Amino acid sequence: MRIVDALATTDALSAIFDDASTVQVLLDVEAALARAQAGLGVIPASAAWAITQAARADGFDADVLAREARASATIVIPLVAALTARVEAIDPVAARYVHWGATSQDIADTAMSLLIDRACAAMGRDAAALAASLRDLSDRHAGTVMLGRTLLQPAPPITFGLKAAGWLAGVSRSWSRVELARRDAARIQLGGASGTLAALGDRGPEVAAALARELALTPGEDGPWHSSRDRLAALIAACAILAGMLGKIARDVSLLMQFEVGEAREAGGGSSAMPHKQNPSGCARTLAAAARLPGLAATMLAGLVQEHERAAGAWQAECPVIADALQATGAALEAMRGVIAGLAVDPARMRANVDATRGAIFAERVVMLAAPVLGRSVAHRLLKDALGRSQASGRSLAEIVRDIPELAAVVNDEVLRSLDDPHAYLGAAETFRQRLLASI
Amino acid sequence: MRIVDALATTDALSAIFDDASTVQVLLDVEAALARAQAGLGVIPASAAWAITQAARADGFDADVLAREARASATIVIPLVAALTARVEAIDPVAARYVHWGATSQDIADTAMSLLIDRACAAMGRDAAALAASLRDLSDRHAGTVMLGRTLLQPAPPITFGLKAAGWLAGVSRSWSRVELARRDAARIQLGGASGTLAALGDRGPEVAAALARELALTPGEDGPWHSSRDRLAALIAACAILAGMLGKIARDVSLLMQFEVGEAREAGGGSSAMPHKQNPSGCARTLAAAARLPGLAATMLAGLVQEHERAAGAWQAECPVIADALQATGAALEAMRGVIAGLAVDPARMRANVDATRGAIFAERVVMLAAPVLGRSVAHRLLKDALGRSQASGRSLAEIVRDIPELAAVVNDEVLRSLDDPHAYLGAAETFRQRLLASI
Amino acid sequence: MRIVDALATTDALSAIFDDASTVQVLLDVEAALARAQAGLGVIPASAAWAITQAARADGFDADVLAREARASATIVIPLVAALTARVEAIDPVAARYVHWGATSQDIADTAMSLLIDRACAAMGRDAAALAASLRDLSDRHAGTVMLGRTLLQPAPPITFGLKAAGWLAGVSRSWSRVELARRDAARIQLGGASGTLAALGDRGPEVAAALARELALTPGEDGPWHSSRDRLAALIAACAILAGMLGKIARDVSLLMQFEVGEAREAGGGSSAMPHKQNPSGCARTLAAAARLPGLAATMLAGLVQEHERAAGAWQAECPVIADALQATGAALEAMRGVIAGLAVDPARMRANVDATRGAIFAERVVMLAAPVLGRSVAHRLLKDALGRSQASGRSLAEIVRDIPELAAVVNDEVLRSLDDPHAYLGAAETFRQRLLASI
Amino acid sequence: MRIVDALATTDALSAIFDDASTVQVLLDVEAALARAQAGLGVIPASAAWAITQAARADGFDADVLAREARASATIVIPLVAALTARVEAIDPVAARYVHWGATSQDIADTAMSLLIDRACAAMGRDAAALAASLRDLSDRHAGTVMLGRTLLQPAPPITFGLKAAGWLAGVSRSWSRVELARRDAARIQLGGASGTLAALGDRGPEVAAALARELALTPGEDGPWHSSRDRLAALIAACAILAGMLGKIARDVSLLMQFEVGEAREAGGGSSAMPHKQNPSGCARTLAAAARLPGLAATMLAGLVQEHERAAGAWQAECPVIADALQATGAALEAMRGVIAGLAVDPARMRANVDATRGAIFAERVVMLAAPVLGRSVAHRLLKDALGRSQASGRSLAEIVRDIPELAAVVNDEVLRSLDDPHAYLGAAETFRQRLLASI
Repeated sequence: MRIVDALATTDALSAIFDDASTVQVLLDVEAALARAQAGLGVIPASAAWAITQAARADGFDADVLAREARASATIVIPLVAALTARVEAIDPVAARYVHWGATSQDIADTAMSLLIDRACAAMGRDAAALAASLRDLSDRHAGTVMLGRTLLQPAPPITFGLKAAGWLAGVSRSWSRVELARRDAARIQLGGASGTLAALGDRGPEVAAALARELALTPGEDGPWHSSRDRLAALIAACAILAGMLGKIARDVSLLMQFEVGEAREAGGGSSAMPHKQNPSGCARTLAAAARLPGLAATMLAGLVQEHERAAGAWQAECPVIADALQATGAALEAMRGVIAGLAVDPARMRANVDATRGAIFAERVVMLAAPVLGRSVAHRLLKDALGRSQASGRSLAEIVRDIPELAAVVNDEVLRSLDDPHAYLGAAETFRQRLLASI
Repeated sequence: MRIVDALATTDALSAIFDDASTVQVLLDVEAALARAQAGLGVIPASAAWAITQAARADGFDADVLAREARASATIVIPLVAALTARVEAIDPVAARYVHWGATSQDIADTAMSLLIDRACAAMGRDAAALAASLRDLSDRHAGTVMLGRTLLQPAPPITFGLKAAGWLAGVSRSWSRVELARRDAARIQLGGASGTLAALGDRGPEVAAALARELALTPGEDGPWHSSRDRLAALIAACAILAGMLGKIARDVSLLMQFEVGEAREAGGGSSAMPHKQNPSGCARTLAAAARLPGLAATMLAGLVQEHERAAGAWQAECPVIADALQATGAALEAMRGVIAGLAVDPARMRANVDATRGAIFAERVVMLAAPVLGRSVAHRLLKDALGRSQASGRSLAEIVRDIPELAAVVNDEVLRSLDDPHAYLGAAETFRQRLLASI
Repeated sequence: MRIVDALATTDALSAIFDDASTVQVLLDVEAALARAQAGLGVIPASAAWAITQAARADGFDADVLAREARASATIVIPLVAALTARVEAIDPVAARYVHWGATSQDIADTAMSLLIDRACAAMGRDAAALAASLRDLSDRHAGTVMLGRTLLQPAPPITFGLKAAGWLAGVSRSWSRVELARRDAARIQLGGASGTLAALGDRGPEVAAALARELALTPGEDGPWHSSRDRLAALIAACAILAGMLGKIARDVSLLMQFEVGEAREAGGGSSAMPHKQNPSGCARTLAAAARLPGLAATMLAGLVQEHERAAGAWQAECPVIADALQATGAALEAMRGVIAGLAVDPARMRANVDATRGAIFAERVVMLAAPVLGRSVAHRLLKDALGRSQASGRSLAEIVRDIPELAAVVNDEVLRSLDDPHAYLGAAETFRQRLLASI
Repeated sequence: MRIVDALATTDALSAIFDDASTVQVLLDVEAALARAQAGLGVIPASAAWAITQAARADGFDADVLAREARASATIVIPLVAALTARVEAIDPVAARYVHWGATSQDIADTAMSLLIDRACAAMGRDAAALAASLRDLSDRHAGTVMLGRTLLQPAPPITFGLKAAGWLAGVSRSWSRVELARRDAARIQLGGASGTLAALGDRGPEVAAALARELALTPGEDGPWHSSRDRLAALIAACAILAGMLGKIARDVSLLMQFEVGEAREAGGGSSAMPHKQNPSGCARTLAAAARLPGLAATMLAGLVQEHERAAGAWQAECPVIADALQATGAALEAMRGVIAGLAVDPARMRANVDATRGAIFAERVVMLAAPVLGRSVAHRLLKDALGRSQASGRSLAEIVRDIPELAAVVNDEVLRSLDDPHAYLGAAETFRQRLLASI
C-alpha cells in the first residue's frame, strides 16, 4: 500500500494489486496456457513443465518490467522476454513454446480476471460482515423512534430499525450486482493476434477451454472479447453503485454524529489539534473512497469505444482504473463495516430530538383529519397558525390544537392524547422494515 | 425536440419527455392514486372521479409550472395546486383528497418510472431492428475476409461476419442489461412524508399495491426508495454501456469508411461545403450521443449519496440527467440502426486491403512453424528480414520465404501455396461467429 | 424552459438557448458573413442585403430543422437550405452567395460563441448581485461568533463574517475564471472546409477579421480552431468550478438550517405534505444544478480528442453539453443569489451552540499553554480527562481546569476568566476576513 | 512505479509521489513550520533544530504509517506521533513543539503543494522539449501538402506544417494554463483547527508568512483554504485539458500511421505475436493516460462541495486523485514528446493520397467559380455528376470538367491547369501556420 493511496485501499486489496502479486498472476497465466496446450498435445509436456518452473515472480524485477512496459505500451512484452530467458536456462527447447499462440492482451486480460476474482472474494468477506451488523442493528432498533429527516429538515418519525434496514437492503442489492457482474466479467481471454486463434490452427477453442479449466475461470465460450469490454464496464459500474450506497450510509451517520444532533457515534477518530474531537473518521474514509468511483466508472464507460479487433489507447487505460476502482470500493466496504460494527446509538437523544419539535412533525396527522372536513387550504392555514403559536409559546402542538375549536372538533380525544407520541404515527415502518430484511 | 438537443434524441423520445407528456404523466399518477384509494374506501369514489376528470394536461400551463417549480425545487407543488384548483371547480369536496397522503417525491418518482417504461419500449423497437440487421449482416458476410486490425495496424485476417457478430453480441448483452435494470427500476414510489405512509394509517401498503396495479408498474413491495437510488443508477449505467457499445460500432464503421480504407459506407451524409463528401453522419451522431453517457452516468453515481429519508439536492438533480441519458442512448440506437440497415460493404476492397500487405500479416503463421525448429528469436529475426525484403522488392512474403532456405525447410509446400490466402488462416473465426450468434 | 430541465436553468438562460434564439443567432452569423464579404467586395452588396433580409428566425420551422439536422449530423445544412430558399424568393442571384466559402461548423461554432457571450452576460448580473450580498453579510457579521466545524464536529470558534468572506472569495475567484475563459473561448470560427479558407482564395483572413467586427467577437487571428477545443473545455471547467463553490455555500447553509442547528434560514421553501416544513429549497436547487457540472465538464474534456481537421462525433457532442452546463451554472448562481439575499441569520443561536459545548472547543487553548510546561502527551491526557469530567458533570471546561492543579498552574487567571469566551479565541479571524474581502 | 500504474506515470513523477518522497515532504513541512516559528520566537530555537534533525524520512516505516493513516483518515496523525517520538529521543523539550499550532490538513495540504511544484517542474521539461520538436516539425513541413480530413473523409488540402502548428498551439496554450494554475494552487496552508490560527494567538499570519518563505511557496496571504478547493480543481482541470490536447495529437498520428494511410510513423512499438507489426505504442500510451483525466477532473470538481471549515470525505478523497492526475498528464507529455521527436513523415505518401482522390477534393473550388454564374444548385448538381464520371472512369476531375461545357465555360484555363495541384488551393494555410507559431 502506498501512502498516497492509503485511504483508498485495504491491506488485503493492496496486496492483491501490488507488484509481486501482479507479476505472479501474469506468470500463472503463461504457465497455465502452457499446461493447457501440453495437455492437448499442442506443445511438448516438457515445455509446460519448464515454463511452470520458471514462472515464479520472485526472480523478476518489477521495476524494470514496469519501465520497459512503457516502450510497447504493455507489460506482457518485457515479461514474456524475461520469462523466455528463464525458461531457456532450464530447457532451451521449452523456451520456444512460451506464450504459444497468444497475444499480449490475452495474458493481461486473463490475469486481470484472476485479480478481479481475488479482489471480489476479499470484498465479499467485508460485505457479509457488514450485512450481518446492519441486520443486527436493524433488529435491535426496530422500536427505536427517531426523526425522519427530509431535505435535512424534521419530518414525521421513523424507526432507526427502518433506517438501518434501508441501508442494508441498498448495500445487499448493490453487492449482488457486483457478484453477478464479476461472474460475467472474470473470464479467460484467448484470441491470439486477431481474435481468431489462427496461430493454433483448429485447436484454438479446445486450448481456450483447457486454459479456463486450468485457472478455474469462466470459459467464455463465445470467444475473445479483446475490444468488447461491456462486461468489465458493468463490473466497475456495479462497484460504483455499491460505493455510492456505502457513501449514503456514511453521510447519514456523519450527520447523526453532529454535536447538535448526537444520535449516533462511531468508535475512534481523533484529531491532531483538538483533544475534544470525536471525528467520523470511518465515514470520512468511506465518503473519500466512494468519491473516486463515479469518475473511474465514467472512464471505463468512455473507454468502451475501442477500435476494431484490439484498441489503441482505450484498452491500455483500463488496468489502473480497474485496480483503483476495486480497491476504493473495498476501502469503503471495510471502513463502513468498522463504522457499523462499532456504532454507538443513542435512543434517548433520538427521542429528545423528536420531542424538541414540540409536535410540529405531527401537523400532517392533524391535516389528514381536518382536510376532509374543513378543506385542504383551511386546514393548512389553521395548522400553520397553530405551529406559529406553538413555537412562540413553547407549548406542544397538541395543546394548541386543543385550543383551536375548528381543529379540536375534528381531532378526537384519542388522537389528541397520542398526538405527541411518535410511536402512534409510524405508519408502515415496521412492515417496510421487515419486508426490506426479507427482500435480501 | 429542441435544436440544441436535436442530435441527442429521437422523435419518439423527445415526445415522451416533452412538456405535454411530462405534465400528463404526473397527472396520471395523481389520478391513479385517487382511484387506488377510492377502490379501497380510503377516499370517496366521487373524489377519484373528479380528480381523474381534472387530470388532463391540456389545461395546464407548462411554462408557469416550470417557473413555479423553482421556488420549491419541485414541479409537484405547483402542479398539485393547479390540479386542486381544477378539481375544486368540478367538485369542491373532491379537492380535499387531491395528493392524499403522498409527498411530492412520490408523484415525481412514479411519473419518472412511467416515462422510463415508455422510453425503454421505444428504444426496444430500435434495438430489435438493429439486432436483426446485424445478424443478417453477419450471416451474409460469414465468408467475407478482411484485415484484422489491432492498435489500428493490420493483423491476421478475420471475416466481416465475425466482426458483425461481435458488434451484435455486444449490443445484445448491453440491451439485456438495460431491460433487466428497467424492470427493477421502473416501480411505483409511495412513502409519504418520511417513507412510512403514516398519513394513511394502516392502509399504506394496500394503497401502494393498488397504485401499482392502476399503473401496471412493479409494485415495490419492500417499500419506498426515496433516498435509495441504486436501481436508477443501475439503469443509467446500463444505458451508458449500451451507448458505449454502439459507439464502438460507430468508430469501427467510420474507420472502415475512410477514403484510404474504403471497405464500408453508410448511406447519406452530405456536406455544406463539399459536393464530393460522403460523411459518416450516422456514426458521428452515434458517437456524439454516446459521448454524453459517461458523464451522465457519473452524475447518477455521484448522486447516490443522498441524505436521510429524502435528499437536499442529489434527488433534485436526477430528472434532467435521466431524461438526457435515455434520449441520448435512444439517439445512438436509432442512428446506428440506420447505419447498419443501409451499410454498403465492399468485399473486394476488403480483400484488396488484405493483399496489399503482401502477406506480411501471415508472418505469424510462419513463425509458429519455424519457432519449434529454429527457436523463437531466430525465427523472429528471419521473418523480420523476410518482411523487409518483401517490402523493398514488392514481392509477397510467400515468395521471399521460398528463397530463404532455413524457412523454406520448415514450411511445407502446402503451407507455402496457401500462405497468401486469407481463407487458409482464419482459425476459429467461423466457430466464434456462430457461438456469438448463439449466445444472444 | 422545459419541465424536465426546470430546476437546472433560469428564465434568462432558457430564453437564450431556446429554439427561436438559437435559430436567430445562426442566421445572424450567416448574415454577418455576407455583410463582411460584401464590405470587402467578395460578394455583391445586394446579396448581403437580401441575405440579411431573409435571416429572420420567425419564418423558420425549428421542429423541421431539428429533425432534418439528424440526417447530416448538423443543423446548419437544413438551415442553409431553408435560408437559401428564402433568399431566392427575394433575389435569386443573392441566393448563390449564401454561406459563401464557409463550412457548417464555422456557422455553428460562431453562433455558439454568441450564445456563450449572452449567457455569461446574464450570469454576470447574478454573480455581481450575489457578491454584493455576500460582502454585506460578511461585514454585518464580522463580530458574530459561531462554532467552527471540521469533519462536521465542533471546533474552535470563527465568525460568521469570516465564513461569508470565504464564500465570497471562492465565488469571486471562480467567476473571474469564467470571465477570463469566456473572453478566450467566445471567438469567431471561419476556416472553410479544411480550415485554410481556400475557397476564399487569398481573402480568407480579411473576411474573418471583418466577420469578427460585424459580430463584435474576439477575432481569433491565429485562425480556425475546428478541432482544437481547449478554450471551450476551459470555459466549461471554469463553470464547473464556480458551480462547485456555489454548492459549497449551499451545503453549508443547508447544514446551518438543520432544526438541531438552527443558525440560518433561507426564505421560502414549502412542502406538499407537511405544513411545518421550511425547506432549504434554494440550496437544494443550487446543489442539484451544481451536481450536473462535473459530468458535463468531463464530457467536454473527454471530447478534446478530435480527429484531424474536423471531428466525427466529438464535435457534434458539444452543443447540448455547453448549453446544459451554462444553464445549470446560471441556475446555481441565481438560486444562491436568492438564498443569500434572503438569508436569516440567528447570532443568538450561533452563540448558544458555542456555549453548549461547555468550553470543550477551547481545550486546544489550554493544551497550547500546558504542553510547553507539562509535555504534549501529559497535557493531552489531562485535557481528555477534564473534558470527560465536564461532560459528566455539566460544568464548563474552565471550572474543571480550575480544579486540576497541574492545569491551573499553567493557565493564568486572565486566560481562565476568558476561557469560555469565544471572542477571546478568534485568532486571525478578522485579519483573514479583511484580507479575503481585499483579495477580490 | 507500480506495475498497475506503469503506463500512467513516468520515472520522474513516480519518484515524486512514492513513499520516500511523500514522507519526506510531509516532514519537510513540519520542520519548516518549526523553523519559521523559532525565527519569530514562537517556539525555542533548540526545538526547531531538534525537529529538523529528526525530520528525515529514512527512519520512518511508510507501510506502518499508511496502515495507521486509515484509523484517523489522515497520514499526518501517525506521522506526527512518529516524529514526536524521534524528537523526544533527541530533545524531550523540543518534542513539545512538534506540529505547533497546526492541524493535520495544514501539513498535508502544504506538502501536496510542494509535490505539485516538483511534478510541474518535471512536466515542464517534457513540455518544452515537445514544443521545440513540434515547432521544428512544423517549420520543416511548411510546404508539405497533405489531405485535409474532416469527419474522417478527404477534404481540400492542408500542409503538414499547419497541422503540426495547430498541435503545438493547442499544447502550448494548455501548458500555459497548467503553469498559471500551478502558481495559484501550490501555496502554503496554515490555519490551525478552524482556520483562524487561534492557537498561535496574534502571531498566526506572521508564522504563515515565515513558513511560506521557508518553503519558497506562494504565501497565500488571504488565509487558509481548508474547504475552498477551487485552485486545486483549476489545476487538475488544466491538466485534463493538456492531456486532451495531447490525446488529439495521438489520435491524429495513430490515424496517419494506419497501413492504408501510411503518412507518418512513430519509432518503436513491437508486438508479442506479430513480427510485422509497427504499433503506435507512444500514441496508445498517450491516449491511455489522457483517458484517465476527465474522470479524475470530475472527481475534483464534484469534491468542491466541502462542508464548513474542513470537510468530512471530500478533502480526504483528493490526494490520490491529484497524484494520479499529475502522473497521467506527465505520462502523456513524455510519451508524446517521444512520438514527435521520432516521428517519420512521408511527404510522398501524403501527396499520393491527395492524388488518389483524382481531384475530388477540389470540387469545392469549381463550385465557388460556377455558383455565382450558374446558381448554387446547378453547380452542385454538375459537380456531383462530374465526380461520378471521374470515379467511374478513373479520369481526374479536371479532365472531366473540361468536357462539361457549362463548367468549362466558368473555369478559366489557368484554374483548369492547376485544378489538380494541391499547392494551388492552400488558401491561408501558411498565414495561419505562422500566426499559430507567433501566438505562443
